[in-house]
Amino acid sequence: MAGDLPNVLLLGPPSVFKSYEREFSEKFYFLKPWESSIPLRQFLSTHAGSVKAAFCSASSRVTTGVLQNLPELRFIVTSSVGVDHIDLHECKRRGVKVANAGSIFSEDVADAAVGLLIDVLRRISAANRFVKAGLWHENGGYPLGHKLGGKRVGIIGMGSIGLDVAKRLNAFGCIISYTSRNEKPHVKFPFCPNIQELAAKSEILVICCALTDQTRHMIDKSVMLALGRDGIIVNIARGAIVNEKDLVECLLQQEIAGVGLDVFENEPNVPEELLELDNVVMTPHHAVMTEQSLRDLYELVVRNLDAFFSNKPLMFEVTRV
Amino acid sequence: MAGDLPNVLLLGPPSVFKSYEREFSEKFYFLKPWESSIPLRQFLSTHAGSVKAAFCSASSRVTTGVLQNLPELRFIVTSSVGVDHIDLHECKRRGVKVANAGSIFSEDVADAAVGLLIDVLRRISAANRFVKAGLWHENGGYPLGHKLGGKRVGIIGMGSIGLDVAKRLNAFGCIISYTSRNEKPHVKFPFCPNIQELAAKSEILVICCALTDQTRHMIDKSVMLALGRDGIIVNIARGAIVNEKDLVECLLQQEIAGVGLDVFENEPNVPEELLELDNVVMTPHHAVMTEQSLRDLYELVVRNLDAFFSNKPLMFEVTRV
Repeated sequence: MAGDLPNVLLLGPPSVFKSYEREFSEKFYFLKPWESSIPLRQFLSTHAGSVKAAFCSASSRVTTGVLQNLPELRFIVTSSVGVDHIDLHECKRRGVKVANAGSIFSEDVADAAVGLLIDVLRRISAANRFVKAGLWHENGGYPLGHKLGGKRVGIIGMGSIGLDVAKRLNAFGCIISYTSRNEKPHVKFPFCPNIQELAAKSEILVICCALTDQTRHMIDKSVMLALGRDGIIVNIARGAIVNEKDLVECLLQQEIAGVGLDVFENEPNVPEELLELDNVVMTPHHAVMTEQSLRDLYELVVRNLDAFFSNKPLMFEVTRV
Repeated sequence: MAGDLPNVLLLGPPSVFKSYEREFSEKFYFLKPWESSIPLRQFLSTHAGSVKAAFCSASSRVTTGVLQNLPELRFIVTSSVGVDHIDLHECKRRGVKVANAGSIFSEDVADAAVGLLIDVLRRISAANRFVKAGLWHENGGYPLGHKLGGKRVGIIGMGSIGLDVAKRLNAFGCIISYTSRNEKPHVKFPFCPNIQELAAKSEILVICCALTDQTRHMIDKSVMLALGRDGIIVNIARGAIVNEKDLVECLLQQEIAGVGLDVFENEPNVPEELLELDNVVMTPHHAVMTEQSLRDLYELVVRNLDAFFSNKPLMFEVTRV
């Protein structure tokens, strides 16, 4: 505790903290284990009595081990949409509430998904490289791309991101269907309960679901084969939803036509085989990252920490386990 | 004339001819000046009596000089949307009808415009390069992009391409206005008669108009300064609508934030200063180019040549001069 500011344990730290450190630090006193010379576990037990709230990013794992060292912890706010890095069962057992970034990134992520898809279909990054290398002048023609309009797109996960992707691709004349844990009564697009079936009837798959035990490696070779040789996959959700080994194999054997990937199984490591492929467009887990959404995130995190410390309702509390 | 097939003078030749040469050649007998050893003018006067129809691309200039050599010519079909390579006044004077590709590329061009815009705003090509060069692992963070939603977009030229761009960007939550020769009663977006004013109130300009004497170099330094330092320009129309010298200067002096360019003043030459800039995304005059649209174009050209030779109404006849 510094002055009258409430203590918040900072894990990571999230990139929004780096951008808004001054503003954050006017409102809360942050405990920063990485600035301490003592090991994390010891740091946590030293501060155990004073830590009621923690702020983390998707890259900090909040495991049973971490939670055991923080018996007074009652609230975790994460800067991410995904909560697969947090042991939600253990949090529930211990009475630790969790809040995520909710839907504040949905539009940015949906924009990035559409951008990656057009890039793969129309070969924009590869064409840009072609022009910048001076090859237009020497080589003349450039391979044709593929039309987006009329394509059958299967959206995997129809939360706020999936819905924003669907709205956008609908305006391009795509034919949308989706799969999700359950059919969503408010969604007008056709529901398909089975991922194999969705892949078989789609030319494009856009992965927008959460990473859970059920979705881990859900997009495997059998799904890719069902999608077929002209198929394109865009993943802006979590890397591990795709079996990356199968993905590399299918790309190298031209079992699918291309991919747009913002996320990877083992970030920041990217399968080496993908680095040379023109039909693979990759961004560094960046689909949420705009200046505007970072500002919105800063405001949301402050609002949630304020709400927690004053016993008010949280925004985007994660209730599923 | 070979057999009973009608003669068509082929200029260029258009890339659709190369892709569908066999199919085209079953329906028409094409005169190919570039396969002849004699100079073009002599080739033209040799065949002058038999040439009633010509088929060209945007890269073949049909000047008064060319037309003078073809007194029997009555029809030119171009594979392009733009007709700035054809002397329309001289055609009218000589009773030569002209047909272009009409709106068949509109969706593809609009898709490419949106793709280029998202690429520039969200730095997709540059991020892809970053990941592929292995820099994510070494450098960690990557600069933030900018949100598309809520951006004020000025569309220059509200023909079928402009309208398709507007429909798409509307679904992303952009605020659209447009300029055009005249206000379009069927368009719901606000009209702005003046390009300077449109630039001043926009954060993004998308150029979708034809190249004419009025639009040549219309997007010059004064327009770019009115657009401002955060401004982005996308050009999928014709290179010469932009003053490329001014554009290079404004980019180097950071008077505008970025550009997405599919077209250039002097194709395939691209200003050398642009090759190294990450905020410049370039494609090789490729916005119309998908396999699907090439097929549609083939069918349209055949339909128009058939219509001409059987005195039936043309599709997409160009009536303005």
